[in-house]
Amino acid sequence: MQIENYIRDIQDFPKEGILFKDITPLLNDPIARKECLKILVESLKGQKIDKVVGAESRGFFFGMLLAHELNAGFIPVRKPKKLPFDTISASYQLEYGFDSLEMHTDAIKIGDRVLIHDDVLATGGTAKAVCELVERLGGEIVQCNFLMELSFLNGREKINSYPIFSALTY
Amino acid sequence: MQIENYIRDIQDFPKEGILFKDITPLLNDPIARKECLKILVESLKGQKIDKVVGAESRGFFFGMLLAHELNAGFIPVRKPKKLPFDTISASYQLEYGFDSLEMHTDAIKIGDRVLIHDDVLATGGTAKAVCELVERLGGEIVQCNFLMELSFLNGREKINSYPIFSALTY
Repeated sequence: MQIENYIRDIQDFPKEGILFKDITPLLNDPIARKECLKILVESLKGQKIDKVVGAESRGFFFGMLLAHELNAGFIPVRKPKKLPFDTISASYQLEYGFDSLEMHTDAIKIGDRVLIHDDVLATGGTAKAVCELVERLGGEIVQCNFLMELSFLNGREKINSYPIFSALTY
Repeated sequence: MQIENYIRDIQDFPKEGILFKDITPLLNDPIARKECLKILVESLKGQKIDKVVGAESRGFFFGMLLAHELNAGFIPVRKPKKLPFDTISASYQLEYGFDSLEMHTDAIKIGDRVLIHDDVLATGGTAKAVCELVERLGGEIVQCNFLMELSFLNGREKINSYPIFSALTY
């Protein structure tokens, strides 16, 4: 079982010059999906996790499975104005300009042990913003994990004060 | 364990006059979340499911757990231009105008037994569009299920040719 066989390259998506890594074949195969979940869980080496945070929206997929498998709460981090309760917000840089992410203020209790998950570690902007939100609410970041890391974008440097695990590296 | 205790009412979200049902407390509680998953799975009475389809983006949460529990593929249905491979599209009516949803053309094989999941059955527009996508690819709809049904909006009428199950009804 090679999980990389379930990641599909799409040329020029979402725009010209980008090689997009499509995870939908992995989501659609229960055996490969379970294998990938197992790899992510094993990387934690039995460490206790109270909360799993997943970034909108592809981080919701394995984020939910990780929360289920680890018997932890799941917390969605979302784009502005999507979360209905009181939120805190963190900005991150895009190619041109800024975007931001929000988390519910009651999502994390001080001292909660938190796993952060997203599908891809690219430039690291999203992951860094999520780490900031978790720490502002008093959470302790146990690991940031990803299905894939695009190592040529050096995103790891932005979050190098935390343990990082990627199931696949390109 | 009353799962309705983990659904939070938010007044005037996303706009004035709307009482929004916030599922984030349910996502953030592993015991209530497991109980809810169990209720959804038991409603299927052991019927075989090949694919679970979840609608963007709150349908991704329990959609992934259902796929995991049922050992089925997971298929995300998304807003336009989010899915990178070849897609088909279906429109549905909004209060003013139309929106549409897309599914990858290779997501379903002819004869696949499909469970459709979303967090809320409201007017039924989204669910009907998802059913249309599944059937155009040759899938057989076993059930449409929801965490909640807002029965006063009569969404059930739009999809009454399929079995429907809602864990909670308001």
